[in-house]
Amino acid sequence: MSINVMKFGGTSVANISRIRNIVKIIEEKIYSTGEKIVLVVSAMSGVTNKLVLEYKKLNTNISTPEYDVILSTGEQHSSALISTMLNEKKISSRSILGWQIPIITDNNHSQARILSINSKLIKSYFKKYKVLVVAGFQGVSHENRITTLGRGGSDTSAVAIAYSLGLKSCEIYSDVDGIFTSDPRVVKNANKIDSITYEEILELASLGSKVLHPRSVELAMKYGIKIHVRSSFKRKLGTMVVKEENKIEKEVVTGITSSENEAKITLKGIPDKPGIAAEIFGALARANINVDMIVQNITDDGKFASLTFTVPIDDQNKAVKELRKSKIKFKKIHSNDNICKISIVGVGMKSNVGVAQKMFETLAKKNINIQVISTSEIKISVLIDLPKKKMALNALHIAYGLKK
Amino acid sequence: MSINVMKFGGTSVANISRIRNIVKIIEEKIYSTGEKIVLVVSAMSGVTNKLVLEYKKLNTNISTPEYDVILSTGEQHSSALISTMLNEKKISSRSILGWQIPIITDNNHSQARILSINSKLIKSYFKKYKVLVVAGFQGVSHENRITTLGRGGSDTSAVAIAYSLGLKSCEIYSDVDGIFTSDPRVVKNANKIDSITYEEILELASLGSKVLHPRSVELAMKYGIKIHVRSSFKRKLGTMVVKEENKIEKEVVTGITSSENEAKITLKGIPDKPGIAAEIFGALARANINVDMIVQNITDDGKFASLTFTVPIDDQNKAVKELRKSKIKFKKIHSNDNICKISIVGVGMKSNVGVAQKMFETLAKKNINIQVISTSEIKISVLIDLPKKKMALNALHIAYGLKK
Repeated sequence: MSINVMKFGGTSVANISRIRNIVKIIEEKIYSTGEKIVLVVSAMSGVTNKLVLEYKKLNTNISTPEYDVILSTGEQHSSALISTMLNEKKISSRSILGWQIPIITDNNHSQARILSINSKLIKSYFKKYKVLVVAGFQGVSHENRITTLGRGGSDTSAVAIAYSLGLKSCEIYSDVDGIFTSDPRVVKNANKIDSITYEEILELASLGSKVLHPRSVELAMKYGIKIHVRSSFKRKLGTMVVKEENKIEKEVVTGITSSENEAKITLKGIPDKPGIAAEIFGALARANINVDMIVQNITDDGKFASLTFTVPIDDQNKAVKELRKSKIKFKKIHSNDNICKISIVGVGMKSNVGVAQKMFETLAKKNINIQVISTSEIKISVLIDLPKKKMALNALHIAYGLKK
Repeated sequence: MSINVMKFGGTSVANISRIRNIVKIIEEKIYSTGEKIVLVVSAMSGVTNKLVLEYKKLNTNISTPEYDVILSTGEQHSSALISTMLNEKKISSRSILGWQIPIITDNNHSQARILSINSKLIKSYFKKYKVLVVAGFQGVSHENRITTLGRGGSDTSAVAIAYSLGLKSCEIYSDVDGIFTSDPRVVKNANKIDSITYEEILELASLGSKVLHPRSVELAMKYGIKIHVRSSFKRKLGTMVVKEENKIEKEVVTGITSSENEAKITLKGIPDKPGIAAEIFGALARANINVDMIVQNITDDGKFASLTFTVPIDDQNKAVKELRKSKIKFKKIHSNDNICKISIVGVGMKSNVGVAQKMFETLAKKNINIQVISTSEIKISVLIDLPKKKMALNALHIAYGLKK
């Protein structure tokens, strides 16, 4: 028995006409492959947000069992609706909820992790049904209470079910065609990437790309499940997320991305003595502010230093306030949110020299000043003025040969 | 351990401010009695109707498992919301769904009947919680699929849980103060009835009164569970539904009710021969039309008869059409929906003579013509002209001494 796991997100099940579109995709799939299908579905788009807002008016602590009881109704509803429509089209189907399989999780409500999935039951249902519509995002704890896996958790449900069934891949359908070399709205010649590694997509996710839930990618990476990210609206192949060794041609740079979600803070005239950085970032950490990029300079006289770092734009004012009210000595503080972070990502970087240099050269030629630099094994990020964003992305896109 | 089962209907949980009102009632109850509480709740009003409408656009057959998966989300949502609000008020609480108890039902989806309830689990939860918020209206089949009990089924859930816990009574809260001697909007002096028998309330339900779900009354009658029907908005006792022998003072007539949901059809000039009635009502039964009251007259010459009966007003045209296209011979057919049915109900009728006569006399004095009569052991119904409804109800209310 050949089984395929297909996951459809909230916009793909947003309304009845979109669900009819899914039914068509399933019909074609069954006709062309004869496969049995596990259809993992999210809640209809907007439903989960509405339930979260309503709940938070009553209780700001969402790590309660009742939060999960409420949120899980979204996928319960959509899975049964879709199953109804499949049956209407004579495609034998039933909905299955997390507790019915069961998908056992820990009891970390609102952020539960999957412990085990009983795939025997799924296989036995295929004797009777062609399609099993699984409510994504949900499981059940050992205490027999409903749990949810955190936002975007249906991706994780799909990968985990594929693994439990011994499959080598799964398909994740959404309203985008796949992963792109850069944002097509900004970079005219941005191309769909045919294949990308788990590591690359995790870097992209940490940079703000929302195509896949990071936990689903981590899980897929751990068990070597290929993820086919593809469109539910176009009949085209999307992007395959694979192991590094499965990627035949390793581009030096796979994708270029940008984020406007940062603010830069500069402290000038801080005493250049051991422990001062720990003091500053300690104060910010206690205020729950994440610091991303950091650069420290020492002035010519060697007595004073300046420190530049970035924080999430929403925390900008809070960070300045925290530092002003702390006992840390500095002469000036300056903050700026008219900036953006440009990142290039690619596993090929590891074995190629001169990747960073090409980035700096390309930006220099366009007269774009680099304010801060940070790097990881497969990523280089730079901070530049926001108005230069489009120019920088396009220049880099050409420089690294990402134009088709 | 003393346990109380309290059920709240859809209008009582319609929104957050109404749920706050329930939380207050529960707080008072715990304070005054120290009881552990099983709170059985319906979906927030309007929710179930919306889900039914949406489903019926896709599939007119509601006896499917998916229909129940969808409908059960309403009570899943409300039970978790209420539990959240109780916990916020430091009243330890958790929601419980049908499958978690479990409430085992048959697999007659959308109209399932309860087979058994595991009350051990409920009792064990009371070691940890003061209030258990049970999602009404739902259960789980032996095939581990969600079932629902039919509209109004939360009443049945409450009575069944009370029985399974060995209790002698339960409370059903709604937006009415109790059962009335007649409709207070029509009869000025209508009074709340202190106690009423199961049989009487079943008759009233069959006559269109919607206070309790008939199946819950049947269940309560079978196991002798008293039902206290009371208001969730006023702090007053309501009406107790009890066994006949528990009703100390047996009024001859307990309540007077009316229904405008009938149409009268008269067939004139039908051959007076055996089997003709069976032919007529057979034709209507095959068209799924329920016939209620029936009167047959034979004309003077003994050859022809006339037949008068009532059908639901919505089936009036269909009934006339069915009879016209049938092979049944008649000279004239006449239908009229400007009528209403007035009924008096009371267990005391059984042991009192002259009850019917008083009804006929009272109406005659007011010059109200009786068109059809039907009786049961504890009920007498008559058909009259609709414009005379208010006059008839008020006159009968006085005649049977129901005025306080």
